This record gives sequence, structure tokens and C-alpha cells, in this order.
Amino acid sequence: MKLIKAEVVTIGDEILYGQITDTNTQFISAELDKIGIRTSRKISIGDNREDILQMLEDSTGRADIVLITGGLGPTKDDITKKTIADFTEDSLERREAAMEALRAIFNKFGKELTEINKKQADLPTKCTYLFNAVGTAPGMWFEHNGSIIVSMPGVPYEMKYLMQNEVIPRLMKAFERPVILHRIIRTAGIGESWLATKIESWEDQLPEHIKLAYLPNLSQVRLRLTGTGSDEQTLKAEIDKEVEKLYPLIAEHIHGEGEEELELTIAKLLLAEKATLATAESCTGGFLAHSITSNSGSSEYFLGTVVSYSNQAKIDLLSVKEETLEAYGAVSEQTVIEMAEGARKALKSTFAISTSGIAGPSGGSEEKPVGTIWIAIAGPDKTVTQLITSTKDRINNIKYGSKVALNLLRKVILNEI
Amino acid sequence: MKLIKAEVVTIGDEILYGQITDTNTQFISAELDKIGIRTSRKISIGDNREDILQMLEDSTGRADIVLITGGLGPTKDDITKKTIADFTEDSLERREAAMEALRAIFNKFGKELTEINKKQADLPTKCTYLFNAVGTAPGMWFEHNGSIIVSMPGVPYEMKYLMQNEVIPRLMKAFERPVILHRIIRTAGIGESWLATKIESWEDQLPEHIKLAYLPNLSQVRLRLTGTGSDEQTLKAEIDKEVEKLYPLIAEHIHGEGEEELELTIAKLLLAEKATLATAESCTGGFLAHSITSNSGSSEYFLGTVVSYSNQAKIDLLSVKEETLEAYGAVSEQTVIEMAEGARKALKSTFAISTSGIAGPSGGSEEKPVGTIWIAIAGPDKTVTQLITSTKDRINNIKYGSKVALNLLRKVILNEI
Repeated sequence: MKLIKAEVVTIGDEILYGQITDTNTQFISAELDKIGIRTSRKISIGDNREDILQMLEDSTGRADIVLITGGLGPTKDDITKKTIADFTEDSLERREAAMEALRAIFNKFGKELTEINKKQADLPTKCTYLFNAVGTAPGMWFEHNGSIIVSMPGVPYEMKYLMQNEVIPRLMKAFERPVILHRIIRTAGIGESWLATKIESWEDQLPEHIKLAYLPNLSQVRLRLTGTGSDEQTLKAEIDKEVEKLYPLIAEHIHGEGEEELELTIAKLLLAEKATLATAESCTGGFLAHSITSNSGSSEYFLGTVVSYSNQAKIDLLSVKEETLEAYGAVSEQTVIEMAEGARKALKSTFAISTSGIAGPSGGSEEKPVGTIWIAIAGPDKTVTQLITSTKDRINNIKYGSKVALNLLRKVILNEI
Repeated sequence: MKLIKAEVVTIGDEILYGQITDTNTQFISAELDKIGIRTSRKISIGDNREDILQMLEDSTGRADIVLITGGLGPTKDDITKKTIADFTEDSLERREAAMEALRAIFNKFGKELTEINKKQADLPTKCTYLFNAVGTAPGMWFEHNGSIIVSMPGVPYEMKYLMQNEVIPRLMKAFERPVILHRIIRTAGIGESWLATKIESWEDQLPEHIKLAYLPNLSQVRLRLTGTGSDEQTLKAEIDKEVEKLYPLIAEHIHGEGEEELELTIAKLLLAEKATLATAESCTGGFLAHSITSNSGSSEYFLGTVVSYSNQAKIDLLSVKEETLEAYGAVSEQTVIEMAEGARKALKSTFAISTSGIAGPSGGSEEKPVGTIWIAIAGPDKTVTQLITSTKDRINNIKYGSKVALNLLRKVILNEI
């Protein structure tokens, strides 16, 4: 079966000149990869008519699909739409469906449509209109000389909405593709190289058509099995058989599968036990609460947080003893124990997580270097602690500490500690 | 003066298939931008001989400089070096200087050079050897048919070492360059299209050599002026003159310039007034605290947060009245007022921000749809509120609400409200 080739293009001077990081093309090619479409090239060009025309000429000549992000804003420096229309020998006209969507958004805002805004509803007559539920710039789908051209806004969450709801489903209909199946096993609390050693012999016996990828991220490593075949049932059975062999090798490190983040695993565990959670955060500064409340439905089990950046807040809101802070300091096992138990009382929760550490870059010392983070989990029967030393920058020390804390909570709920 | 054009290329399947984020090209084009060299295109291709040859052909035809990262490892899927040699009708030979560097590194780690490692010292005879002090893959500098081709390893810190120590200095010698200056004006609380309307006539009168770009992100829009000229003093004066005309048009929306995030603007304002800050978060779920504490030094002015996901926590920790919650509900102006004033008392801060809303996707109603967010700022003399309706997904409703809240705080501190 012929391999479907895609080129992924970003348009915008801000990416070209290095003013912002491009995360769109990684997301897009990963999504294409999941449905067996191979990204053969990525291109970034500026908001420049000649470059856009040349790119369209070259890319449609090489690839089956050209996915473009950027250059769809209402302002003057955004010329993508007009240029694609010219390339496809087409003209713009106001599209009623797009106007409807614009009116809906502006009514919701209680704001009135300006002439500039209305321009966003002007689309090439030959393109298929792709509804954007999270922004004002519509997506566009063109079929031109045997190639598919898709234009999406550059704002990452708008692009993601369009990819997942409009573009991927259409691409799956448009092409006959080999059967590609992924299964992702999620581990926490074990490093990539340790994991690799534990499963080395299993990895070596995997059949040719089932590939393994390690996807590490902070304290978690996702193992992605990708199988390629012609029959879905057979392929699925083969992958499941391999995963069955894998589980006993690393069972205690597996927290879930697929897209299930650690936060979601914990949500399930808490809901199953009708238990509730609170956090008391010093060095993680609210990130733990944010990562938990990022899940819709978290109000079912999450009661709240005290971020106690000042010692006074630790004393007033979490009943940490002044003597404890004086004797051991804010970054200490004794303090995180009192923080966690204090949060459990103050917020009347079943479990509470606490963190106190030095996120950096400043504030480190000989005995407590930057990256030193104390974590405690208080539960109905016991309080457990863990000390970690992270060697990352501030933001990643915060994220790493939060992930380790969530994994410690998981083990406490499961009585593995 | 002729504008020097560069194309920045990454070679490697892992970037193409979306397994890793490419941060190299952003770094490289930002470095080029600093010395007045314009990145005209970025390209990512795979470890594939034909694609590399085609890229070399196209890019050297278009650009003065082609900067390539990736594909220099000793393993067999790394073919960049051999392919560039073929393109420049050259052959590889072992380079003594490169062998020296390899020996030094392997001695340092007490490892012995394998045959595979030694291959890294085989370089095209015509290239200039670029010493890599932090890795085993040397950089290479080619001059071919009037274009410069530079090949660097894909490992980010190795690429950075080579760019800063070898490539940039050589490029500055190689070209007479125009002066390129940027100035970024940061606005908050006004959408791109409304901003565009307010400054349209100013934008139209900008001279040809000073370009304007809108860089929107949630409730903020950065305006980037990019000037091209021959004399730095003159160009700077011209840009400053334009910015002087811009300020009065949108003064109340400008919070800072350059890389100064809204969080940093607020940090400066609070420190200047020796004031402190606390937050009481419902729908933002700790993100506001996280965005504030992401700045090192925030402990100077940030005291803490109560994330009150449950009504009980609002009552117990923030002294919100039960009657208020019953009469108006948690998502109401009355409740955010009591939350902000309660947080100010509980955490003994000068200012307090509170948020309560429906982040979604569930929990919306006819009169309070998803995206409804109430914000209050409590200060020494007054408490002000703002109602917003966001139309984004859960995570971006949270982020948007937080940014709007920070901007409202800014206006309160500045007595603009």
C-alpha cells in the first residue's frame, strides 16, 4: 500500500525569527503518525506572499497532504488566506456559516462585530469550511490538483481543536491507509534506563512489525507499542499478547494506559474509595492544585489547597508549629508532615499532599541545595514522606516535584507503602 | 545593503515524526536575528539521502547561508556528513585535529575509542573543522558556489556551543550586514482586532523599513516593531519616535515591553509599593498562584493562596458567608468579593485576587454558561470586580481568566480603576 506523505507548514515571522517556539508541527505530525500518515517534511516561512506561493507549488508537487498553520488573524500581516485563494485561482466571498459562528462568539462576549472581524468570514469559494469552536479564525480544506491543502490558525489550542474534530476524521476518510495500532503503557517513578534494563529481553523478542518507543517526561516514561499490519483484529491480538508479557515485569511502575495522566489515575482511585483530596503547597506554588483541577470533574474529589509561601500562612492556615519551623526550617520532613496533616484537618479531606522545597534558581544552601524537595502524604491511617533532589530549572523542579508527589499518593491509596 | 538570508535545517526522523520538540531552530534564528541575518525559511527533513541532497540544492540556490543541525552521530542512520561531502563533490578523510579532540574527550571519561567513534573524525577534505568542546561530533563549515553551509550536531547544548563560539563569530566576519532592531510593546486586556482598529492610522504611516507584527496570546497582544537600516543610532531613534506616537493611542493597555510578562510587571509594582499579594481561587484552581510563583523571587511579595474548590473551604478558610453562597451561588459577584476580602484577611496581604467561574466543559447553565468567570481584587481602599465570558476549552478558560485577573490587579495597583 502506498505511503501517504504529508508536509507540515507554519507561516509567520514570529516563528522564523525565533520569537516563539513552534509546538504546532510536533503535535500535527504526531497526530498524523497515529493514523499512519508519514510527515515527510516540515517548513516554516514568513508572512510573505512569494514564499507562500512557492511553498504551495513545491509542497503540493511532493506531498499528498499539505497542512498549514498560521497567518489567519484579521490583521494586516496575515495574508495566508488570500494567497491560497490566488494559488487555487479562486476568490474570497463572505461565507454565511462562518458569519454565523462569528456572531455566536461575539454575542457570547457581548461585543459587536467590527469590519475587521467580519473579514474572518471571507473564505475562498472552493474551500470546505472547517468550524472552529474555540476561536474566530475558521479552518479551510482545499482539494487542488490531487493534493489536499488544509489551513488552520496558528494559535495552538485552536489548531488542536481543528485537527482532532475536523482534519483527522476527514483525512481518515480521504485515504486508504495501512492498519496502524498504538498501545501506550504509562509508568511513573522509574527512569528510562532502569526501565530499559528491566524489559530488555522482552524488547528483543518483539516481532518486526511491532515497534517500541520510550517517551520520557519528567518522572514518567510512556512505553508506546506501534504495530503495522493489514488486519486490525489480528494486529490488536498480537499487541495485546506482547503487553500481557510486559505487565509482570514492571507491574508496580504502571499507573495506567493511553492518554490517562497520573492525575486521572488518582481521580479514579479516589472516586472508587469515595475519598477526597487536598494539597498544602510551598515550593510547588499551586502547580499541584492546577494539575489536579485541570481535569473536568475534579470538584467531585478535590476540596482545595493552601499555598503557604510565607511561614505565617503555614502557621495560620495549616497549624504548622512555630517551633517546628524554627527547629527544622520550612524545608524539612517535620514541616511537610505538619503541613499535610494540617491541610487534611483544615480542608476536611481523606488525603492531603504537602510539598516544601527549594525550586531555585536562588535560595539553595550547602546542606539544602536547589532541587531539594520534601513531600508528605497524610491519610486516615498514616503519613508518609519522600525526599527528592531534582536537578532541573525552576519550572521543571516544580513540575517534577508535583509528579513525584502524585505518584506517592497513588502508592499510599493502593497501600503499596 | 543586501539583506543576508539564511535557511535553518534540521535533519532527523524524531523531529519529523513528532517524537521530540525542535528547540534548535528557534535558538539559531534568534542568534542570527541579533546580528542582522534574516532567517527566510526553516526546513525539517528525515535521515534520507535524496531529501538531504534536494534540500542542499534548493536552499543553497535561495539563501546565502544554510545552517544544518542533526545527523552527525556515529550510528548508521546518520548520513548528513557523507551526503554533504557528495553534494560538494568531496570525500571524507580522517582529520588529525578532530582525532585529537576525540581522544581528549574519551580520555577524560576513561573510555577507549572504538572504530565507530573514530569515524566522527572523518571529515570532508574541503570543509573547515569547527571544534566542539562539549561533544564528540565536530561542526563543519563549507563554502560552496557562493553559499555557506554549516553542519552542527542536533544535541541542543552542542549546537549552542558551536553557534556561539564558532559559527556566529565567523558569520560576522563573512558578511557586511544591515542593522536590524526590534522593540516589543506588550498589551493586555484588549483583543487583536480592537487593538488594530485603535492604531490603524498609526500603522499605515509607518515607514517602509519599520514593520509591525501582532503576537497575540490569550488576553495579551505583543506589538513587535522590526526596523532594518544601516546605522544603529538612527534606526533606534526612528523606532523610538514611532513608539512615542503609539503610546498615547493605547497607553492604558500597555503593561510593559520586551520579555516582561504580566506577572513580572505586577512583581515590580508590588515591590515598588512594598505591597504583598494573596489569591483565593475557585475556577482557576491554583493556576494563578502557579503563574505568580513561576517567577524566582516571588516569595518577596507573594504570601499564599487558598484554592477553595468546595463551598465548605470557602466558608472555613475565606469566611465567605453561607447565606451568600445560598443566595447568589459560588459563581457570583457577591461571592468573589467575600473570597478576595477573606483571603486578604486570612493571609494578611495588601492585595488579594479571587476567581470563581465555570471552566467547563461541564457545569454550565442557561444563565451561567461555561466560560463565565467572576474576578475580584481586594485592596486597602476598595474591592473591584470584573465579569468575563471565555469561549475556550477548560485549560485555556483557566489561563485566560488568570491573565485577565492579573491585568485587573495591575489597574487597581495603578489606581486606574
